[in-house]
Amino acid sequence: MNKQQLYANILRKQSFLCIGLDPDLKKIPVHLLSEEYPIFAFNKAIIDATADLCVAYKPNLAFYERYGINGWLSLEKTVQYIRLTYPDQFIIADAKRGDIGNTSEMYAASFFQDLPFDALTVAPYMGEDSVKPFLSYSGKWVILLALTSNKGSLDFQLIPDTKGERLFEKVLRTSRTWASDEQMMYVAGATQCSLFSAVRKIVPDHFLLVPGIGAQGGSLADVVKYGMNDTCGLLVNSSRQILYAGNSTDFAGKARQEASKLQQEMKGYLTK
Amino acid sequence: MNKQQLYANILRKQSFLCIGLDPDLKKIPVHLLSEEYPIFAFNKAIIDATADLCVAYKPNLAFYERYGINGWLSLEKTVQYIRLTYPDQFIIADAKRGDIGNTSEMYAASFFQDLPFDALTVAPYMGEDSVKPFLSYSGKWVILLALTSNKGSLDFQLIPDTKGERLFEKVLRTSRTWASDEQMMYVAGATQCSLFSAVRKIVPDHFLLVPGIGAQGGSLADVVKYGMNDTCGLLVNSSRQILYAGNSTDFAGKARQEASKLQQEMKGYLTK
Repeated sequence: MNKQQLYANILRKQSFLCIGLDPDLKKIPVHLLSEEYPIFAFNKAIIDATADLCVAYKPNLAFYERYGINGWLSLEKTVQYIRLTYPDQFIIADAKRGDIGNTSEMYAASFFQDLPFDALTVAPYMGEDSVKPFLSYSGKWVILLALTSNKGSLDFQLIPDTKGERLFEKVLRTSRTWASDEQMMYVAGATQCSLFSAVRKIVPDHFLLVPGIGAQGGSLADVVKYGMNDTCGLLVNSSRQILYAGNSTDFAGKARQEASKLQQEMKGYLTK
Repeated sequence: MNKQQLYANILRKQSFLCIGLDPDLKKIPVHLLSEEYPIFAFNKAIIDATADLCVAYKPNLAFYERYGINGWLSLEKTVQYIRLTYPDQFIIADAKRGDIGNTSEMYAASFFQDLPFDALTVAPYMGEDSVKPFLSYSGKWVILLALTSNKGSLDFQLIPDTKGERLFEKVLRTSRTWASDEQMMYVAGATQCSLFSAVRKIVPDHFLLVPGIGAQGGSLADVVKYGMNDTCGLLVNSSRQILYAGNSTDFAGKARQEASKLQQEMKGYLTK
């Protein structure tokens, strides 16, 4: 999917919602546990209940690896189900990978060739040659960590260099030479809105993947105020708030209600 | 495994060799491709041929994820085979994970609870709360990226802050407060030996996992000269040089020859 198609989907659906698929067997409704693939059954119900309200899904790899073979099969089934049933969805592998070139090539083939993901989150610490292999797939995206939503983001990401440029700014400035805004996005946490203007100074046109609203405490209004650009430029993620809105037989309906609240709020921001 | 046991193994085997298990179906001997689990068959032969010459094995997760279910099963079989057959081996998941707390908890459970790994490589960009969940498992290790062996390490890891402290030094200095040298190691690439003295100034007692000799061009003599401490403090990794020394029916014997050369050189350094 290219940037224009993504923006067209956002306008058509009046939504820039990304739903994080972080299935936790301890939290999903107990009646699903007797299914052969409980995670897939859970995901499928969530997806069917929300697909008209969001433009992206983001399976978090940790929550599939955790369940070994069954988890991996559930990931494959989930991604293939989305691709076939809702082909307009942008599918993000939240994997935070990144390694030396020959290893990143392997990860890239897994996510972009064997599995039909559109994008992969990548950690920047190892630099250009750890990111480049993911950029060799036409139409596929790298979403590079810049400013994460967690407390530990303060440990290294905000350290200024001798010219006062902070690490996340250096990551943005350096990496924007590796690929254009047609193939690269950045993670910028909703808990860091005070820094969004610094982000937008360096990457005014890029899409930002924004985690951290809901369970982590970030505000959608602030994200929009400081992060939105003239092609929206935002994919705002919500995971737990939607997935675990209910835990009984009506969980998918409850999830839809939560997703709908966010979509309605987003609609307001898009039509201003 | 604790630090004392690891050092005892190094002395007993006169080796601080770690063998990286990066199985690539395009490179393994063709006669193995008819096996049900070619990757496991390859790994098992390599392990049986080298276990007396090394103290650690390091499966690189990318090379298993690449092959989907078969790859994941091969990883499980490999790790369980090492754990049962060669219980003195230190087993490292080279995964370079790291995410917000609830996600790192999931990864930690996968590698330390469901799979019998001793250690996991972790990327530091997201800071303390992305690393801490891995440290809650007694007897298990985090191996944090400090100074990687690739060209892209120059992009961010060497940036000095206003006091002249470079990012990799900041990572070392900050993270050594998260856990002691009994639970934390660091990745320091063999291609960066000129910086090993800077590493050792901050973490004199920690073990370093050192990739980058062989295919990547680093020198074992330099690694020892600048990195060894009084409990050895080094796990030097070799992957491709050993795994793909041969590609015919005698591949395991050829792998043993390469591993043996390295072990003999290491023996010389340990008895000095």
